[in-house]
Amino acid sequence: MTGSTIIKLLFSTLIFLLFMAYLLFMTSFQASQKMEIVPAKTNRLAPVPVSPRPCTCQPGSVQLKDRIPEDQFDKVYQRRKEEFEKWKKRTSSELSKLLLAPPNSPLQYPIQGFTVPPLRRCPIPGTHLTAPQVSTSPDQVHGDSLSLKLSTGEQSSYKVILNVRKGLLSADASLFTGEVILKGDGKAELTVESSSLKLLNAVLASVSYQSSFYHVHTADLASFSFENHGAQFPIIIRQPQLPVIFDMGADISSQVSITIKTFLRYDNLKELLSSIRRFYPNITVIIADDSIEPEKITGENIHQYIMPPAQGWFAGRNLAVSQVTTKYFLWADDDFIFSQSTKIEKMVEVMEAVPELDVVGGSVQGNTFHFSLEYDKGDETEGGCLYRKSHGRFHAIPGYPQCYLTSGVVNFFLARTDCIQKSRFDPLLKRVAHSEFFMDGLGSLMVASCSHVSIGHQPKKNSNQYNKFRKPTGGSEQAFKYQLHFFKNNLKCIKFG
Amino acid sequence: MTGSTIIKLLFSTLIFLLFMAYLLFMTSFQASQKMEIVPAKTNRLAPVPVSPRPCTCQPGSVQLKDRIPEDQFDKVYQRRKEEFEKWKKRTSSELSKLLLAPPNSPLQYPIQGFTVPPLRRCPIPGTHLTAPQVSTSPDQVHGDSLSLKLSTGEQSSYKVILNVRKGLLSADASLFTGEVILKGDGKAELTVESSSLKLLNAVLASVSYQSSFYHVHTADLASFSFENHGAQFPIIIRQPQLPVIFDMGADISSQVSITIKTFLRYDNLKELLSSIRRFYPNITVIIADDSIEPEKITGENIHQYIMPPAQGWFAGRNLAVSQVTTKYFLWADDDFIFSQSTKIEKMVEVMEAVPELDVVGGSVQGNTFHFSLEYDKGDETEGGCLYRKSHGRFHAIPGYPQCYLTSGVVNFFLARTDCIQKSRFDPLLKRVAHSEFFMDGLGSLMVASCSHVSIGHQPKKNSNQYNKFRKPTGGSEQAFKYQLHFFKNNLKCIKFG
Repeated sequence: MTGSTIIKLLFSTLIFLLFMAYLLFMTSFQASQKMEIVPAKTNRLAPVPVSPRPCTCQPGSVQLKDRIPEDQFDKVYQRRKEEFEKWKKRTSSELSKLLLAPPNSPLQYPIQGFTVPPLRRCPIPGTHLTAPQVSTSPDQVHGDSLSLKLSTGEQSSYKVILNVRKGLLSADASLFTGEVILKGDGKAELTVESSSLKLLNAVLASVSYQSSFYHVHTADLASFSFENHGAQFPIIIRQPQLPVIFDMGADISSQVSITIKTFLRYDNLKELLSSIRRFYPNITVIIADDSIEPEKITGENIHQYIMPPAQGWFAGRNLAVSQVTTKYFLWADDDFIFSQSTKIEKMVEVMEAVPELDVVGGSVQGNTFHFSLEYDKGDETEGGCLYRKSHGRFHAIPGYPQCYLTSGVVNFFLARTDCIQKSRFDPLLKRVAHSEFFMDGLGSLMVASCSHVSIGHQPKKNSNQYNKFRKPTGGSEQAFKYQLHFFKNNLKCIKFG
Repeated sequence: MTGSTIIKLLFSTLIFLLFMAYLLFMTSFQASQKMEIVPAKTNRLAPVPVSPRPCTCQPGSVQLKDRIPEDQFDKVYQRRKEEFEKWKKRTSSELSKLLLAPPNSPLQYPIQGFTVPPLRRCPIPGTHLTAPQVSTSPDQVHGDSLSLKLSTGEQSSYKVILNVRKGLLSADASLFTGEVILKGDGKAELTVESSSLKLLNAVLASVSYQSSFYHVHTADLASFSFENHGAQFPIIIRQPQLPVIFDMGADISSQVSITIKTFLRYDNLKELLSSIRRFYPNITVIIADDSIEPEKITGENIHQYIMPPAQGWFAGRNLAVSQVTTKYFLWADDDFIFSQSTKIEKMVEVMEAVPELDVVGGSVQGNTFHFSLEYDKGDETEGGCLYRKSHGRFHAIPGYPQCYLTSGVVNFFLARTDCIQKSRFDPLLKRVAHSEFFMDGLGSLMVASCSHVSIGHQPKKNSNQYNKFRKPTGGSEQAFKYQLHFFKNNLKCIKFG
């Protein structure tokens, strides 16, 4: 058979295949449009329940709304609702919206990492492409970002539309006058039209975005469309943060301060201080003191702060931490006592090895009283469910088998001083309070509990006066705490397990 | 001409068009692959410079490294480098990587908003689809998330691969035994293969992700591929945060506390206090006092905290704020004086109208001393450039023409108490310090300056002793501040304009 016949044969085969392809595309495309999905059988592991729906209070939970005085309930409930709405406004943005990349779209666009400073014009994909903290491996970059790449036949003209909500778009078609029609340059909606796909893409590669409003951290949503194809992608508007880092200096004294809250127990305090000085002669000690009749505590690098009487536990903790100038602070109760095994350096080592950690707890008399928190935000107007699980923990820290990630630790811990920028010791909590710090910090604080560093506990010798204050009768303190959780944490119920 | 002829004619035209389409697609596709982009002419507005590259210090800037004692420089520089690296680890994640949606991919996947709690199994797109804070408008949801939708011809078999780095994938093919081959269920790489696109997609719709590690906020990157088509999408791993909100109560006293730092100026302080009581008889006043010989200040709802002598300006501010239990605190210097026009309520009104605001400044004697900060992070080892621009501001707040967004304000401001969780009054700054709070908070604090609320200033009557402390000679304080900026803020130069 002649060459020409072969060519004819090949040609017609190709034509035939193409035609089949065309038909099949049409059908499969239509099918995919209105395909009813066979429901997947529920898997063995129970998946996370879908919100919003009320959360279930575990048996033994305290129903918090029962703890709000009836006559106040409606007003309190209303105020909580309003505050929660504002909290949501502060903590969520366009970035929480679910976006999907539609299949078979000829459009190319950035789906993540396009970040612009407020009010500054940035080419898309923008400075982030090469910003230091962005490691862009080649396989992620397909040349210029915005572009139209048709897989289907050529057309006499191509028209793409790009629009944004919180900013302005600009592009440059000056090199292609007559060949590319650019509309809306400097406006929120940009239209680029051309009979040449190549030139259209060249102009698309020049598109810049500029936010119209100042905000330290928010986002815009861009819509990009061509004919019946459309896509949305996020533009993160972020004022670059000035780093705030601490100088570790050379020795432990320039790395850690010891923070103590004391109340009426000067004997204990003095014993603690002398034990500290036995092992750490120069380390700074910050004492928050709300005793009724304050007694002067002096000593090299020992700083005593006198509070109004009985301001309370967390007020004192907050005060002490507010005065720390080192990268870390070590929390100790005034009736603890340092020993050979109170090696602060070992806690610093873990922190330095895992910079994401905020708090590392040790053990008191050989016991690590860590706990995990289970939180289900449930229905937002009704409130969430919180469960404190004693001894609960997650997994060990790689390289530190004595350290486990958890939600909260004992009263003896090392913390990054700026962890207070994630969770505060709420000064409203006057007497019995500890877990509350970790509850307020749930979702912000990275906490670990380590068993290889421990501190001692002095024998109990509390004065009656001390006990009168520390352990109030009638449970008024407890009642107040439940009311606080109801409002502050938008909770429906809480269980201490 | 007969019907059959017409059909033949149409058919061959169609074939011909298809063939042309095919050829043109191939060429345009190849072209697009290696298309050299015509560089866009620089637009009239200068775009943001591309990092990393050294930033340019404006004329009049202070070169900070010249302020570090030569003999210490190398060590300090090295420590700064190390701390900055750790800071980056804490503040960046996979989420800063640039990702692009490749064009003409048959794959559908979530590009944003797929958020999972750590260690919990979540169907993709996951609970976020209907989570309260996510308003998903129908046009964004294209049925099930993960799917393969071919635009090209049918095949005898389809095989997609999905893999992740920090978690495990699971899916359910139990309904389609023999029809769908599922490999790697419960592992980091999942393969789904079938001769039916419909069944393949049904199984893809059942895919779940579960992170293998506990983290409060990090991300995984999923890779999804089919033949030569690939896509990457982020999976946000986030431990849900417990809300922390304040009860505003009913009146101004339950909404705002007044915070004051005082030093040796009891006459001024007493005048301020009596002016406060003239207009706000019950509002809580918190006084941080580091006078050499403290004098007792008493009064209903007036709380005085005695610090060790001369601890300094910011230590005192930090202390005062640490004791606040109301949603807002009002900062005032001890030589200010309340007047008719010191209407705290008006500041609260602005804050409540714009929940994202952290700080609202007023005017002192009719002057609003606001400033804007221009920060270029520049080359990270060399450090960034910071420029404080007096009177600099952005745009007015909608509805409040007297209020402009800016970077920093005067010593008289209302702040959200938890703004301290974004920026701290660095206690290392002992004497002359104010802007530093807003510098440390750049990128975190939303700040506005309002001209419609003002406070008075008492006539100067400073004792020599006061001046000796407040305005140290020899500029030792200034020298220290420059060293602090060099390290703490990873800066190369700073300019006060």
